[in-house]
Amino acid sequence: MAQATVAFQGEIGAYSEEAAARLFGPKLRVKPCRDLADVFKAVEAGKAEYGIAPIENSLEGSINQTYDLLLYSQLKVCHEVIVKITHCLIANCGVRLDSIKAVYSHPQALAQCRDFLDRLNGENVPTYDTAGSVKMIKGKNLTDSAAIASERAAQIYHMEILARGIENNPQNFTRFLVLSKQDSPPTGSDKTSLIFSTKHVPGTLLEALEGLAAQGINLTKIESRPIVGKPWEYNFYLDFEGHRTEGRVQQALENLTQNSIFVNLLGSYPKARGG
Amino acid sequence: MAQATVAFQGEIGAYSEEAAARLFGPKLRVKPCRDLADVFKAVEAGKAEYGIAPIENSLEGSINQTYDLLLYSQLKVCHEVIVKITHCLIANCGVRLDSIKAVYSHPQALAQCRDFLDRLNGENVPTYDTAGSVKMIKGKNLTDSAAIASERAAQIYHMEILARGIENNPQNFTRFLVLSKQDSPPTGSDKTSLIFSTKHVPGTLLEALEGLAAQGINLTKIESRPIVGKPWEYNFYLDFEGHRTEGRVQQALENLTQNSIFVNLLGSYPKARGG
Repeated sequence: MAQATVAFQGEIGAYSEEAAARLFGPKLRVKPCRDLADVFKAVEAGKAEYGIAPIENSLEGSINQTYDLLLYSQLKVCHEVIVKITHCLIANCGVRLDSIKAVYSHPQALAQCRDFLDRLNGENVPTYDTAGSVKMIKGKNLTDSAAIASERAAQIYHMEILARGIENNPQNFTRFLVLSKQDSPPTGSDKTSLIFSTKHVPGTLLEALEGLAAQGINLTKIESRPIVGKPWEYNFYLDFEGHRTEGRVQQALENLTQNSIFVNLLGSYPKARGG
Repeated sequence: MAQATVAFQGEIGAYSEEAAARLFGPKLRVKPCRDLADVFKAVEAGKAEYGIAPIENSLEGSINQTYDLLLYSQLKVCHEVIVKITHCLIANCGVRLDSIKAVYSHPQALAQCRDFLDRLNGENVPTYDTAGSVKMIKGKNLTDSAAIASERAAQIYHMEILARGIENNPQNFTRFLVLSKQDSPPTGSDKTSLIFSTKHVPGTLLEALEGLAAQGINLTKIESRPIVGKPWEYNFYLDFEGHRTEGRVQQALENLTQNSIFVNLLGSYPKARGG
């Protein structure tokens, strides 16, 4: 792929940057952003060709903020990337595990390492980023604190790894979506993502899904998010196999649209290995 | 209802306690717990007849921890309670809004007040409880910090309300489940909750749901949570209208069981007003 700028949330060494490197190669140009919302804004404003956003983790589930940002976004999903997450406990050189009183990291990373942290029994401090926590601990030269981040983050900031593979379960993967102004052409092994909401009358969700079943479409994920201002009504996020240009997908989309009051077709993209 | 002990997460004045008071009356005996897991354990061990757990909020969505605790629990859902959430910014008496540098509360409450907090532009500190944050600020007599909690929490701890109704949207409700060793008899207006997972082959989720549609059952909520150790496989949580003793529900449950590799029937309970 030609060199393009990729916006991601966090600092250099964040898992999102690793996902970007996986797809675009090591020579990519990156634009670190403080918030996920800034990643979307950077692509919308043309300051980056691509944005990368975590969508779900195999231990902790969906990343609600990404789902909520996608809702009214005009951006399209053009790729998905799956990254194996191996968390390390990282501290300044010479610091020992038994002197750690506080652990800093992104709330998702803290949650993925809950069992280890329960045994450590220090204070857990949520921050905006994994690699950013390593950088902060180095910058302030803290000797009673550690960060949870990737091995790569430890290398980048020249810090020591006190423990490796500290996640609750080794089957720890995060799926990232790559956002751009357009989605991808068909490859023969594709997925399509969309958001829809139904009329608030009994049976409409099942009716809407039946349109997919009738076309033999394989639903790989369904997620619901509340509609703000309408308690107990939901937007549904679907991922399914197939490209939006395929006949059976077009037929299913037509059925779905008829049963919905809102549809945002996020796009079609090549299915990731392991996805 | 006879006086029974109700376990809840948080301190006296927490929204969970308000939900308990709504159902059991003001004279209830309560057992405050530090963690949601402790609420489940208290009921399992017979230290409380009932436990109360938030399951979803109309602005922020599902409470993942409650979903995960329900998964292998033997407890049943016997009631649901919906509480209107009106958050207040609460400080020690005499403290002014412009001297607030840090706001303490439960992460859900912080998220529900994100817009207000963005304007305030102080530090947001996640804690284990809304009312517990008020108690802590009072106990330490902090004059540059405030807590987000209910008006009732401000009254209980004799603290000042600096701002009222600070949630992102006034349509802010939390649905709580009441857990016990058995569910409830039919009332004519009931809901049933269950958890299931399907074989990991294409189309099985839609097939399993079709069994409900065939019986004309109204699905009110579907939620997915990842299966730990099996990336991209999910447990699905369903709420639907009807009692498990009704014929059409029994038929649907039979269909669902045939299409599933795991089913945990959480029970049937009277539908809450507004639910």
